[in-house]
Amino acid sequence: MSTPLCIFDTTLRDGTQGEGISLTAEDKVKIALKLDALGIHYIEGGNPGSNSKDIEFFKRVREMKLQAKLTAFGSTRRKNIACEQDVNLKHLIESGAQAATLVGKTWDFHVHTALQTTLEENLAMIYESLAFVNRGGMEALFDAEHFFDGYKANPEYALAALQKAKEAGAAWIVLCDTNGGTLPNEIAEIVSRVVSVIDAPIGIHTHNDCELAVANSLAAVTAGARHIQGTINGYGERCGNANLCSILPTLQLKMGYSCVSDDQLKMLTNVARYVGEIANVHLPVNQPYVGNAAFAHKGGIHVSAIMKDSKTYEHISPDLVGNKQRVLVSELAGQSNILSKAQEMGLDMQSDGLKSREVIDRIKELEHQGYLFEGADASLELLLRDAAGGAKQVFTVDSFKINVEKSSGTLNTEAIMKITVGGEQVYTVAEGNGPVNALDNALRKALVQFYPGIRDVHLTDYKVRVLDEKDATAAKVRVLIESTDFKDTWSTVGVSSNVIEASWEALVDSIRYALLSMVKDEIPSGGRREELGLINH
Amino acid sequence: MSTPLCIFDTTLRDGTQGEGISLTAEDKVKIALKLDALGIHYIEGGNPGSNSKDIEFFKRVREMKLQAKLTAFGSTRRKNIACEQDVNLKHLIESGAQAATLVGKTWDFHVHTALQTTLEENLAMIYESLAFVNRGGMEALFDAEHFFDGYKANPEYALAALQKAKEAGAAWIVLCDTNGGTLPNEIAEIVSRVVSVIDAPIGIHTHNDCELAVANSLAAVTAGARHIQGTINGYGERCGNANLCSILPTLQLKMGYSCVSDDQLKMLTNVARYVGEIANVHLPVNQPYVGNAAFAHKGGIHVSAIMKDSKTYEHISPDLVGNKQRVLVSELAGQSNILSKAQEMGLDMQSDGLKSREVIDRIKELEHQGYLFEGADASLELLLRDAAGGAKQVFTVDSFKINVEKSSGTLNTEAIMKITVGGEQVYTVAEGNGPVNALDNALRKALVQFYPGIRDVHLTDYKVRVLDEKDATAAKVRVLIESTDFKDTWSTVGVSSNVIEASWEALVDSIRYALLSMVKDEIPSGGRREELGLINH
Repeated sequence: MSTPLCIFDTTLRDGTQGEGISLTAEDKVKIALKLDALGIHYIEGGNPGSNSKDIEFFKRVREMKLQAKLTAFGSTRRKNIACEQDVNLKHLIESGAQAATLVGKTWDFHVHTALQTTLEENLAMIYESLAFVNRGGMEALFDAEHFFDGYKANPEYALAALQKAKEAGAAWIVLCDTNGGTLPNEIAEIVSRVVSVIDAPIGIHTHNDCELAVANSLAAVTAGARHIQGTINGYGERCGNANLCSILPTLQLKMGYSCVSDDQLKMLTNVARYVGEIANVHLPVNQPYVGNAAFAHKGGIHVSAIMKDSKTYEHISPDLVGNKQRVLVSELAGQSNILSKAQEMGLDMQSDGLKSREVIDRIKELEHQGYLFEGADASLELLLRDAAGGAKQVFTVDSFKINVEKSSGTLNTEAIMKITVGGEQVYTVAEGNGPVNALDNALRKALVQFYPGIRDVHLTDYKVRVLDEKDATAAKVRVLIESTDFKDTWSTVGVSSNVIEASWEALVDSIRYALLSMVKDEIPSGGRREELGLINH
Repeated sequence: MSTPLCIFDTTLRDGTQGEGISLTAEDKVKIALKLDALGIHYIEGGNPGSNSKDIEFFKRVREMKLQAKLTAFGSTRRKNIACEQDVNLKHLIESGAQAATLVGKTWDFHVHTALQTTLEENLAMIYESLAFVNRGGMEALFDAEHFFDGYKANPEYALAALQKAKEAGAAWIVLCDTNGGTLPNEIAEIVSRVVSVIDAPIGIHTHNDCELAVANSLAAVTAGARHIQGTINGYGERCGNANLCSILPTLQLKMGYSCVSDDQLKMLTNVARYVGEIANVHLPVNQPYVGNAAFAHKGGIHVSAIMKDSKTYEHISPDLVGNKQRVLVSELAGQSNILSKAQEMGLDMQSDGLKSREVIDRIKELEHQGYLFEGADASLELLLRDAAGGAKQVFTVDSFKINVEKSSGTLNTEAIMKITVGGEQVYTVAEGNGPVNALDNALRKALVQFYPGIRDVHLTDYKVRVLDEKDATAAKVRVLIESTDFKDTWSTVGVSSNVIEASWEALVDSIRYALLSMVKDEIPSGGRREELGLINH
């Protein structure tokens, strides 16, 4: 039996300290659900004492009955007051989270310089705050800030702080390398010492300032830590936190520990890319395990060797983490993925070998052009339906024009459009708060007389990403659009060198998808279903 | 005295195996000069046997009298032929490089599967090839490919291969973790064993497939390796090679080894960014030691602590590697962040209490509206300069129009603009691959006659984010633009309910910022500086 480890994700808290990482409450909810599906044990959602966005997040998530323990973050109480008077601790209890992480000082230098209080008062702050949180019905975790620097400067005091946390009933005592400057051999030595001296479960929290956060986490586990804190893709302040996307597979596939199930580990690449999309951060192609180039082979000798046996140049089989081998330009989402996706939609592709090959070739080609279907299920569904059913277009757009005019401070945007719906040409014009909004308004204005349900459909998110960064506004862009009709939510994608064209493509997919489900609801069989290509021929 | 180590850079060879990395001979020459200035001991320039670009590179560089040893890369001879018949070995000798790295097999599985020859023939290939290169007047290095996998599978054979290399006179025997799957404790154990068994100088070459390349290199040095191979910014196949930008400072500042001089180490940030620019690859902001965010502080508590003593949240002083501390301005942060930011720019806000309060209120108000200055240093700098100096506008835009027209498949976008520069009205029109590109082109077309340097300025990244997701295309959007003039990189922000307006705002800030630094360079005092608001009144 392999030793089980406890995985603690702080993407939603420490991760958002990273430069350029900013998540709405809605983003956080989506990521929390994904982390829960991955099998993460603790999900730290934010700091309810510091902002109202996090309070809203906790309110929404606690009703979702996650498998993971929902965790709120805060500090030990302020100096020289009672816990009952500390507003932040009050917010922590009120968050409704099951667990609370309290960060406290263990480095004497910080107690003097940053807190500007006495060593004794700091110990009291640790003990009383953890006990207060425990009494409030929450599981209490102690984040021992700057523990390694503290231990090197004054080991007795650093250990005394941990001892206080243990006495107050901390469920986990987590040793933090807050400044990220500690080396793996130091981590190993100090964690071993703590494990032998402090009779409590020990965790590790590292930062990547020396590009050693992953190595330091692994060294701590080898030395006896049983709880690892980190973030998806290593997001976090300065150089980031320990990257769970690298730590999880190494622990589980190479070191014999068990963290999540094998099937959950296969979700890893998807989770990494999903979180990157939500955070609107470019996932580096060379990111270990989950990057698009992690198993990509460029050199001719390498390619000929992997074609003989892929373990010649691959340290693990990429499918263990849900990634895939890439040779030349084949970006493909494996045939089996596509087939199971089609099955999910009730489309029978398997029986028609030719069409299934065709659609896979088409997807490969589109992915090569920069499309990313992982964040755009609705576009993928349309593509598969088109291939399976030979869908007719409900509408065709004959032409459009957009005029933007700015003078004397005001800016006006209008879209003029000619579209054909069921043989009839409609000519419309609409204003908008930008070119895409104007296009959206004009298109829906034209369609609403035929499909009144389209009135409820609206876009909820719109993201633009430059694909080739060499020459930004003239480079290719990928647009992701998220839409809702108040019941369902779906995402679509468009790619073009022109941002309007890419947006338009994603917008048309969104509306086409809306029409699909509308007709599904209103006309259960026959009639317009055929027109929409829902019936396989 | 600290132990000296030998640093071997393979950015120009293994680095170019990375996805998206492609260097011309001219690029390679520029990078080689930079690496030489940094004090790198061996510069591996390429594989003269594989392409003519590398032959040209060697020809140009060998006349430059570098301090570093110029090194060419190749393989051991092909099976069953004499070295004299091997074209690649011949090219190696003819390259004129002082040293040659020969890669050879040490993993029996690879000898059988990839080479498809006998174990004995492979040993002969190693011995004869290294001896041949030595006879050709070059220093010979042996890259023991897949050494760690080979050692784990068949230690006797792996060591026998090294022994052959030693007997042939290899100057360095370099143990390669080619697939990047080995863990630090395995590296430490195996390197120790090699050092005790093989009487030759030992080197290390690691890959980052487990995010452990840096840790593995350090572990090898601790175990007795004295030569480290890596690349600038960790460029390389799949997940990249060991990142010298992280290894150098850790070895030198934290582990007591000596690699380069202290002054050379101070060039590190500049070298990393320079190589990134030449390779046309975005340097991750969170890259350890050299990234723009490596010493950036966001949380208010962290900021107030570093203002008391920067070692509270910094593991080293950033100037040791030529980087600098940055304070990120965000909602979470208070007045102290703004003041230290102004100080960084040489603006004296502290003495003028009223203005500093005013500007902080203004920033808060803007952040409340959705501006995010932590990713937009240039916009923040303009804001502070405007407040401090009452800057005049270099240009004003009187009006603009954008026309987008799509018919019969093609989409055309043009921007028409009236702007006033120095009292003169300019009327321009330009096309673009989208509205923002068209605006950018039109604006720069109007300005270039007054400020020719504006020709070099171009956008390198463009991000759109919807702030209130309830109603996307009609909601507020935030646009972040990153620009460069080949020397500096800066970011600007715009927020509006209209995406064109938000983009325009970020674009104007970008151009205004470019004009600031341009005028700084060209007219050291007086003149246009005043016009640009650079002189405080």
